[in-house]
Amino acid sequence: MSGNSDWFAPRGASAEVEEGSVLSPKFDADGLLTCVATDAATGEVLMLAHMNAEALIKTITTGEAWYFSRSRKMLWRKGETSGHSQRVVEMRVDCDQDAILIKVEQMGEGACHTGRRSCFYRAVPLGPKGRGPIALEFRDAEKVFDPREVYGDRKKR
Amino acid sequence: MSGNSDWFAPRGASAEVEEGSVLSPKFDADGLLTCVATDAATGEVLMLAHMNAEALIKTITTGEAWYFSRSRKMLWRKGETSGHSQRVVEMRVDCDQDAILIKVEQMGEGACHTGRRSCFYRAVPLGPKGRGPIALEFRDAEKVFDPREVYGDRKKR
Repeated sequence: MSGNSDWFAPRGASAEVEEGSVLSPKFDADGLLTCVATDAATGEVLMLAHMNAEALIKTITTGEAWYFSRSRKMLWRKGETSGHSQRVVEMRVDCDQDAILIKVEQMGEGACHTGRRSCFYRAVPLGPKGRGPIALEFRDAEKVFDPREVYGDRKKR
Repeated sequence: MSGNSDWFAPRGASAEVEEGSVLSPKFDADGLLTCVATDAATGEVLMLAHMNAEALIKTITTGEAWYFSRSRKMLWRKGETSGHSQRVVEMRVDCDQDAILIKVEQMGEGACHTGRRSCFYRAVPLGPKGRGPIALEFRDAEKVFDPREVYGDRKKR
């Protein structure tokens, strides 16, 4: 893979970044962008993860979702352990080019390493609260696969 | 507003964080969570922004979206300049509790400070590319309001 300057334009003034038609991503201090993955068919938000330049380029060239794991500090092809890969149907970049949206076809039913379809399976109730920390409410939390069968003792991938 | 320990439980083991029913958010080194906002009616991803503990608590208690601006380093109620506020219909937290999803009713047509409905108005083409940086394709990029009228010379809010 050649240098990133083959892929990305240098960051210009904000009008250029926002209204221009050249990819000029803004990686944070750790070299990462945030990426939100949605189900291309239903629009459901499946997960949120991070991409470094290499993950972004691999996702673009292969059409499969690659991320960078902040906890494991390594590049990671979604589904490389679980088989639950993500085929990217469309990729979008946001106005200031520090966030990526991918609309994906999720293989193997679930995107979440806990066994759910989506990582967002708990609601935070709004409004005044009672004593103590906020209690979450499980929603759409049915498990679509058994994470112990899929991952064994390994961490999510 | 009292201390955050009134609102959030201390972080426990990952099984607790993932399968428990208590809000125990994981703020990053800058004290931030990532938040994705979708249109509650259509599911469209509108924008991605950040919340510190105060923004999260204000969003929960008021039912309106509050964010923390990394560039301006300040708490920010979405729409405080533009009037384009976001009424939160539902809030979700993800498996490891470092990301928030809010499904919102977007006031004033557009969430994006450039005048579009969504911040994700440009597609990144997938597959092999030609010479030079990747060219973006505008999609759903129609302006629903005139940012100069709404913001004048001020930055997005």
